[in-house]
Amino acid sequence: MSTLFDPASVAIVGASDNRAKTTARPLAFLRQSGWDGRLYPINPVRETVLGERAWPSLRELPEVPEHVFVLTGADAALETLEVCAELGVGTVSMLADGFAGTGSKAAARRERLQRIIAGSGTRVLGPSTLGIVNVRRSLFLTANAAFAEQDITPGGIFVASQSGSVIGAIASRGNAMGIGFAGLVSTGSELDLTLGEICSATLDDPSITSYALFLESLQHADHLRAFAAAAAERGKSVLAYKLGRSEAAAQLSVSHSGALAGNELAADLLLRDLGIGRVTSLEALLEGQLLAEAITLPETAVLEPRVAVVSTTGGGGAMVVDCLSLRGAAVVGPSAETAQRLREIGVDPGHGSLVDLTLAGTRYDIMKGTLEVLQSSGEFDVIVAVPGSSARFHPELAVKPIADAAGGATPLAAFVVPEAPDALRQLRAAGVAAFRTPESCADAVIAGFARRRPIMREAAQPAGIAQGLDEVASYELLSAAGVTPAPYAVLAVDEVPDDLPVAGPVVVKAISDELPHKTDAGGVVLGVTDVEGLATAIRTIVDTVAERAGIKITHVLVQSMVSGGIGEVLVGLVRDPDAGPMVVLASGGILAEILGDRSARLAPVTKDLAWEMIRETRSLVALDGYRGRPRGDLDALADAVVAISQVVVTDPSVVEAEVNPLIVQRDGVVAVDAMVRRVVTEGAGR
Amino acid sequence: MSTLFDPASVAIVGASDNRAKTTARPLAFLRQSGWDGRLYPINPVRETVLGERAWPSLRELPEVPEHVFVLTGADAALETLEVCAELGVGTVSMLADGFAGTGSKAAARRERLQRIIAGSGTRVLGPSTLGIVNVRRSLFLTANAAFAEQDITPGGIFVASQSGSVIGAIASRGNAMGIGFAGLVSTGSELDLTLGEICSATLDDPSITSYALFLESLQHADHLRAFAAAAAERGKSVLAYKLGRSEAAAQLSVSHSGALAGNELAADLLLRDLGIGRVTSLEALLEGQLLAEAITLPETAVLEPRVAVVSTTGGGGAMVVDCLSLRGAAVVGPSAETAQRLREIGVDPGHGSLVDLTLAGTRYDIMKGTLEVLQSSGEFDVIVAVPGSSARFHPELAVKPIADAAGGATPLAAFVVPEAPDALRQLRAAGVAAFRTPESCADAVIAGFARRRPIMREAAQPAGIAQGLDEVASYELLSAAGVTPAPYAVLAVDEVPDDLPVAGPVVVKAISDELPHKTDAGGVVLGVTDVEGLATAIRTIVDTVAERAGIKITHVLVQSMVSGGIGEVLVGLVRDPDAGPMVVLASGGILAEILGDRSARLAPVTKDLAWEMIRETRSLVALDGYRGRPRGDLDALADAVVAISQVVVTDPSVVEAEVNPLIVQRDGVVAVDAMVRRVVTEGAGR
Repeated sequence: MSTLFDPASVAIVGASDNRAKTTARPLAFLRQSGWDGRLYPINPVRETVLGERAWPSLRELPEVPEHVFVLTGADAALETLEVCAELGVGTVSMLADGFAGTGSKAAARRERLQRIIAGSGTRVLGPSTLGIVNVRRSLFLTANAAFAEQDITPGGIFVASQSGSVIGAIASRGNAMGIGFAGLVSTGSELDLTLGEICSATLDDPSITSYALFLESLQHADHLRAFAAAAAERGKSVLAYKLGRSEAAAQLSVSHSGALAGNELAADLLLRDLGIGRVTSLEALLEGQLLAEAITLPETAVLEPRVAVVSTTGGGGAMVVDCLSLRGAAVVGPSAETAQRLREIGVDPGHGSLVDLTLAGTRYDIMKGTLEVLQSSGEFDVIVAVPGSSARFHPELAVKPIADAAGGATPLAAFVVPEAPDALRQLRAAGVAAFRTPESCADAVIAGFARRRPIMREAAQPAGIAQGLDEVASYELLSAAGVTPAPYAVLAVDEVPDDLPVAGPVVVKAISDELPHKTDAGGVVLGVTDVEGLATAIRTIVDTVAERAGIKITHVLVQSMVSGGIGEVLVGLVRDPDAGPMVVLASGGILAEILGDRSARLAPVTKDLAWEMIRETRSLVALDGYRGRPRGDLDALADAVVAISQVVVTDPSVVEAEVNPLIVQRDGVVAVDAMVRRVVTEGAGR
Repeated sequence: MSTLFDPASVAIVGASDNRAKTTARPLAFLRQSGWDGRLYPINPVRETVLGERAWPSLRELPEVPEHVFVLTGADAALETLEVCAELGVGTVSMLADGFAGTGSKAAARRERLQRIIAGSGTRVLGPSTLGIVNVRRSLFLTANAAFAEQDITPGGIFVASQSGSVIGAIASRGNAMGIGFAGLVSTGSELDLTLGEICSATLDDPSITSYALFLESLQHADHLRAFAAAAAERGKSVLAYKLGRSEAAAQLSVSHSGALAGNELAADLLLRDLGIGRVTSLEALLEGQLLAEAITLPETAVLEPRVAVVSTTGGGGAMVVDCLSLRGAAVVGPSAETAQRLREIGVDPGHGSLVDLTLAGTRYDIMKGTLEVLQSSGEFDVIVAVPGSSARFHPELAVKPIADAAGGATPLAAFVVPEAPDALRQLRAAGVAAFRTPESCADAVIAGFARRRPIMREAAQPAGIAQGLDEVASYELLSAAGVTPAPYAVLAVDEVPDDLPVAGPVVVKAISDELPHKTDAGGVVLGVTDVEGLATAIRTIVDTVAERAGIKITHVLVQSMVSGGIGEVLVGLVRDPDAGPMVVLASGGILAEILGDRSARLAPVTKDLAWEMIRETRSLVALDGYRGRPRGDLDALADAVVAISQVVVTDPSVVEAEVNPLIVQRDGVVAVDAMVRRVVTEGAGR
């Protein structure tokens, strides 16, 4: 893969002689940067390009180039790719559009591309990539106009972006921040090399310490997972900005990059599961890197990090406390003991969550001493220092002590209140994540701590046609997994027993795998208390379902009605094409549905994660003794969530499952309706 | 008030000769800036200060200075204030702390300050003010270290901040952005001059076009309202950043500024009611000013502005679409007709919400033409243009056309994707609100359109002791306002009628103004169907309430139980000490309570606002035919909300009212419990 990021020789096919053209950029940039590799401009119709010799074709070169950047249109590019595959070129980057979307032409091109490289050693970056930049090697192999400027500070961040234009913005913004980069790549359509593969290939580069991903879709999640796991192994942090949090933007990613934007919830769960910190701003994607690097990945994520805020300005300190708290951090003051230690060095810790040094004075020893006391207290996950106006004129007063406190026991971050680019640079140079705005600071803190060690998962979708199981078959499958249904019996519609087969009152339900909405079809009768009622119910059901749904019911389910439930929940299992199986927990009732009060995780989940979900589903506090109400058995609920999430492992053919409602009782939980869908192979299935 | 912002002569009491000291700054800054007024340093113990003549006292000056900045401690400052009041000084700014908080010493100082200025023509800025800056006059009458730098661009923004340190940050950040200021003031404790009064006093200054407020509290809301109304009159826009959105930060404002932070909900409602756009970031407070100026205040706020996004870079465009949509804007594509006009100028409008010019090419005529078509379409409230990399090197391509389109029929804003400070300056110089980040852009768009013409309101709190009315008296008061209770009758506990006084089944309730929680005290019996049951119920109530609450019940309320309700809501009326009366609407039920699904406005509300509240209370869609469920009479609910909100006008003695539940039926709404609290003057009241 060195031919992708660090080739010894490069050929540029379709290099233009017209500097105004995009296709002139890669050659111009590489000459401008003084890249020291062997460079071959290829142009069949010109002797020279941009004043240097142009070669008529790849075949006439004195050597087989390691990396070929093809700037021609889609079909010509495929011709070139064929030659490259024959010659055994390592990497071919393709600028051309015309491979994305649902059109037949694009589909044909995609197939042809796959055919060409199949079996060859040639790998493709793109199509529709703007190229790749290796800062230390001065390799500006890109058509992105932004790289006409090449004074990029070498650093530890590797940027991989599914949007080509964005790498230019990231480079220019990082530069202005004094943030250094190791490399930047535009991954394009990822028809061959995926973002995950590319990042994995760079993991052994010691100069790369962290990753910044700009994502438009979650395609090739398996490669992303493999990369995330390997990165965690090596202690290299990964932050991501993912487009499409809103429905409107999710739609865009589809049309824009041609990739399926995927489900936003799935995206969030996947990144969380991979231990990738998801920031919601480009600022935090860059400013937050040093903080992410400073946090060691725990086994379980810290969803409410304990933050200490130390400021030399009340207003500025309050701003960052506000942003942190709104994002869910626990901004807390020091303990009595730690407060005492602060007083001993002349600092009044105050009473609130903010340690305001305004009165103690903006002095090196005060700030340094305060940070040391807080760092050594072990009471905080992170400390945010907030220097005020002095940061602009007298960095020696409040900025230097923060820089000097870097690398202490507790991760350190800083929000600089005034415009003070030099202070930001000084802090970053010392390894302290420094933020221009309190919003970016809070964004990075939350994203940094939401990470945990990634787990390897099998997200493969079962192939075949999905088919729904009837309620009985669904119960059988879920019981095996450990989810208990309310007592039930199955009766043929023509047999009438001497007594109710299970304790009454009972509900009588039609059994059919063609009847997903039993109730609407008249397939349910409630509150039956005796055999006469049972007989009537069965007749009614048979007739109504036949009439409304044209389905002949042969068997009914007779189930004890559950009384004394504390509340009802829904537990569901679905598979996302990118992220894989997810388990969802939601409160029962129409309000919870309307207000979207639910929690989800990738499946299967551990009991810890099940409890995380229960706490995240806010309305479930109503089942936990809220205002003197009875307490439901939430521990049993957690077990049920784990059990249902396990189904995807025990029976990989299950594509969907739902228990709704699952009744939470004082003691235990019980399912009173269930639906399972699984893929069946020809012939099999009920 | 010219003596505050534009004095001809200034005396500085307590001016230090030690440049390291805060108290040396005002003199140093004024000399450095070359302010051309008459300046008198006052220092009783020194002949000279910072190399110039110092005067021993105010009395010995050749004239009475118009403005005196007192830099001494609290008590000495009060002495000086006394002299100033005698001499007839116009404005006295006081740096001293020690006036805030609940301590008796501080309270005594506050009283003394009020006594001194009572009846005098002297007004006080502060105490604990860092001073005031008049940019055009080069008046740097401030102790804020940030103003050692004085190359502030003169502009139209007047900044008023309750945090003294923040004005420095705002000035330095604005400078870096090329944003100009007319003036900046630190309002301190506002013991005399309030932020509202100060801003009002500057309204006639033609050089001031807009206001940026940094608020920690809502004290003196009446002055703020008067200012907001006058500013709207003059078409001068007002944006505000208010600290304390989170509980943690709200607590801080208390300890930090000594002012009561007030209720966050009330703050939000007040600013909205005042037509002040509330931004949530300092960036938007500055970058958003030009947009706010470009929007003419409507009668009703535009809560979901229709936004067109035009970009020369897919990724960057998608980022701003994402941020805008998440904040509630409706990012929409052009109509078929407008799309056709775009095609005619060679632009493919695409299908989604983003007009991406990538294919059409980054050219002046393309961007200019597109903006003209969209501006003239009248389909959008605002257009956001998003130039990409070209903004950095070739502003003539995509930036200039945006600048040239300024002042069109539709307000214009721009998010510049790469780091391109010059492009931002060029756009701002042309009057286009230009944003560094998509977050700031979305923040400003939402805040800008959430504004409407302010209404004058009487927010005065009724004085006296508040007392609860019993249910009957509450019904009487609310019926008069137009809220109908379920049919009821009042019975003496010893009279038993021949028949139920109202249609059964009935609920029987104890009547007492000392029994807010009837049910807990055993004061409620449900489902009574006949007179025997009624007699039993009355006996039970009398005995249980006597036993549990030690209260003798003499009368009971007999009320028909309402059946066939579609849903239940709560409508409440409360008074916020700062914002005044507020009406709150919430869904009934524990889930809505837990999930905080409610809406509120300052009272009274119009029917339009009542409907806004109904739509804002998300779970109420359950009463609006959701999924084939019956439809409740939401129009009657809107009327009821208006009626209850009117009570504060019809009966100013009412401090609190609550109808819970108010049952929404297919036809009409009916109250089945109510509580009203009003202030009573000695002797009066039941």
